[in-house]
Amino acid sequence: MAETTGTANIGVVGLAVMGSNLARNLASREGNTVAVFNRSPERTRTLTTEHPEAGFVAAEGYDEFVASLAKPRTAIIMVQAGRGTDAVISELVKRFEPGDIIVDGGNANFHDTIRREAEIAPTGIHFVGAGISGGEEGALNGPSIMPGGSAESYETLGPILASIAAVAEGEPCVTHVGTDGAGHFVKMVHNGIEYADMQLIAEAYDLIRQGTGKSPAEIADIFAEWNTGELESYLIEITAEVLRQTDAETGQPLVDVILDEAGAKGTGAWTVQNALDLGVPVSGIAEAVFARSLSSKRAQRDAAADLPGPSGEWTVAPDDADAFVEDVRRALYASKIIAYSQGFDEIVAGAEQFGWDVKKGEIAKIWRAGCIIRARFLNRIAEAYAEDPGLVALVTAPYFRDAVAGAQDSWRRVVQVAAGAGIPTPAFSSSLAYYDGLRAPRLPAALVQGQRDFFGAHTYKRVDRPGVFHTLWSGDRSEIETTPSSH
Amino acid sequence: MAETTGTANIGVVGLAVMGSNLARNLASREGNTVAVFNRSPERTRTLTTEHPEAGFVAAEGYDEFVASLAKPRTAIIMVQAGRGTDAVISELVKRFEPGDIIVDGGNANFHDTIRREAEIAPTGIHFVGAGISGGEEGALNGPSIMPGGSAESYETLGPILASIAAVAEGEPCVTHVGTDGAGHFVKMVHNGIEYADMQLIAEAYDLIRQGTGKSPAEIADIFAEWNTGELESYLIEITAEVLRQTDAETGQPLVDVILDEAGAKGTGAWTVQNALDLGVPVSGIAEAVFARSLSSKRAQRDAAADLPGPSGEWTVAPDDADAFVEDVRRALYASKIIAYSQGFDEIVAGAEQFGWDVKKGEIAKIWRAGCIIRARFLNRIAEAYAEDPGLVALVTAPYFRDAVAGAQDSWRRVVQVAAGAGIPTPAFSSSLAYYDGLRAPRLPAALVQGQRDFFGAHTYKRVDRPGVFHTLWSGDRSEIETTPSSH
Repeated sequence: MAETTGTANIGVVGLAVMGSNLARNLASREGNTVAVFNRSPERTRTLTTEHPEAGFVAAEGYDEFVASLAKPRTAIIMVQAGRGTDAVISELVKRFEPGDIIVDGGNANFHDTIRREAEIAPTGIHFVGAGISGGEEGALNGPSIMPGGSAESYETLGPILASIAAVAEGEPCVTHVGTDGAGHFVKMVHNGIEYADMQLIAEAYDLIRQGTGKSPAEIADIFAEWNTGELESYLIEITAEVLRQTDAETGQPLVDVILDEAGAKGTGAWTVQNALDLGVPVSGIAEAVFARSLSSKRAQRDAAADLPGPSGEWTVAPDDADAFVEDVRRALYASKIIAYSQGFDEIVAGAEQFGWDVKKGEIAKIWRAGCIIRARFLNRIAEAYAEDPGLVALVTAPYFRDAVAGAQDSWRRVVQVAAGAGIPTPAFSSSLAYYDGLRAPRLPAALVQGQRDFFGAHTYKRVDRPGVFHTLWSGDRSEIETTPSSH
Repeated sequence: MAETTGTANIGVVGLAVMGSNLARNLASREGNTVAVFNRSPERTRTLTTEHPEAGFVAAEGYDEFVASLAKPRTAIIMVQAGRGTDAVISELVKRFEPGDIIVDGGNANFHDTIRREAEIAPTGIHFVGAGISGGEEGALNGPSIMPGGSAESYETLGPILASIAAVAEGEPCVTHVGTDGAGHFVKMVHNGIEYADMQLIAEAYDLIRQGTGKSPAEIADIFAEWNTGELESYLIEITAEVLRQTDAETGQPLVDVILDEAGAKGTGAWTVQNALDLGVPVSGIAEAVFARSLSSKRAQRDAAADLPGPSGEWTVAPDDADAFVEDVRRALYASKIIAYSQGFDEIVAGAEQFGWDVKKGEIAKIWRAGCIIRARFLNRIAEAYAEDPGLVALVTAPYFRDAVAGAQDSWRRVVQVAAGAGIPTPAFSSSLAYYDGLRAPRLPAALVQGQRDFFGAHTYKRVDRPGVFHTLWSGDRSEIETTPSSH
């Protein structure tokens, strides 16, 4: 064993697919020697046997693993989020010394990351929660990495992560997001935006399919074409791939053979739940999460299958098909802008709430490659924040304002067509309603305040002068100035 | 002191407006003697002085308060939800005996209620979380009461609560909802539905106002008229009242003087957050919660105020105004059915998750009076569940199916008009999209599953045979049968 002691500059604990791929990625980069450890040693042996080129330093126990790391020791935990993570952390903390770095690269809830960082901080060991996006492929070839933790730990960790991250226009897709849970928070919002993006694409596909009768392969061509323009992104690209796929068994398009009940791993729901805590309206993301859960309610869908729809069939006349497809493309783009605008609002609110100095433009940049929502228009987001770091809503930046202005007639027509035809477009509709709400000079929220004051004495403010007011609804209906109610 | 010992059959701790009113309500019922206690004794003195007719047994300390209660002792805590509740509970638990009953009548989070019940159970003291709806007015004259806790405690508590509850068609608006946190859970969902109902009303008002140019007073007449039909409900009734109100200071309609930034106390957000935990799509409630938070984003609204809207003005021709108003009424009714259907879905899912035997029809019945969402059509909900206790979705019951069928053309037109005119109708639109999603024979969730399998090997099911499958997207694109991925 002696010859391996202290030779590895980085270690990976947990060698399921994500961990193995990340370890191989690390090992493939100049200057890295990678220690690997897994609870069941078979996995370690398989990895080292199948990848001798990696020169892994394999350990079969925590003592051996920790001994194999050069100081300051740096270990990345890649186990399933939850109690397993706590167990591994506890073993490492027992053996690590002040200045060593423990990275949790799993999909932890950022509240757990904040808690863990606070628990470990007194030991002098750095704990870094790092969001790692891009799935198995990204882990192997270059993920987008969103590390939190201390600035000090990032001095050691940053170059290592930069060496394995995806590269977009020459820049590695990694940045120090902020302290403690900032990385996992931003990764969570990334996933929430991903939910919205996928749902919007699904609605676009559904409308074109049902409206024009085009085949999935023909719609694949449309998505491939879209992928050459402002919608260019990984999700548009793979949508074309999925739609083009034929099921070998039936000869049918694969998308017609796949059961239409969408699964979810929970980060979309977290994004919405935390947005609710933060008071940020992320309606597009919420509709996307709900659309998935609705799809999986088989008993309800069966019972509802004969609920009446609109009378009459809906079809787009062949001559109008191209214009309709272009309307859908524009609606998709406008809705996508709203989804990202809402997601960045949540990042801004989270940063404020938890004291993180998150640079929004940097986040947009590290999402340009290696992650699921990588998209050309993230450059536009980075530019918008570079131009105005205090931008209060992405959709109000000149580029996006113009983009939505150009798209909105199409967007409105598409929502109208869907409502009339009985095609569910929850994310398109919600995004448009959000846009119209945001720009409304006057909202009926005033009536809601009046109702709340009537039934609960919740008080209201006036448009014409400061103060807090209550109308004596059960009395003489005069208005009194008061203090905000606490009930 | 001796003469008051053990004379009160019920006590109230916490004498802010809700507690005072509930105590007065209790005292006004035959057979009740009510002990009252507040941390600051001034409040107790004010209450007893102002209401000598109540015959309160006033206490200035916990010992005195507990001594004044007959056994089994029953005390209702009416303090602000949170740590204050825990503090009062702890004082009572110190002094109570097995068989005594502590009721938390505040707006507790049901998770706290479950925790508290579990903590107190070993003492043999009953802990009952009871949702109390209806605000100050309800507390005084008859609230809708949603108690959880043990069936045993309800034997003592039930008659007391029945004596003070609102009465609907001869039945008191109280039922034993289920064990531990069931009462506060159902109260939470009540509030979530309330958010949706209020937002839908606000959207209806906004459409009529902007489309027809009718004044708030004229729209008040419309709501008053609606309140004579199937929409009859407290919220429709008070909407008419609010819209009819003139601001004495300016002579303007009050609704135009109220600042259009809606507040929230958090139970709407809880409803959505728990629905996300339970996997229940409550999109209408979520849109309502988000609409409120959007309205209060003043900086964003100011920045977005000049974002472009649709070209051209939208107005409803005077000759079409009546038809338009009727369209809006039907859209409101259909959307409201969806909101309640989603709310009851959450109750069903919560009952299953937490092991509560919730009788849905009984819940509908106790909401018919005393609470904010009291409405004529709750009788229809009770009937639907009486007819089919296993009803999988409210909207699939014959009555509601017919109601939506009759409303849907109007509903679709209203969503179309709003999208075209740039009037934000997030709740109308979302409810329609949910309806169309629920009844869709085929959803584009299949494409989402294809995407997830492509980028994350998340697998999919097939429509034609059981099993779990994965396409080797980065390989030869053949399909393999597999087990569901855990990453």
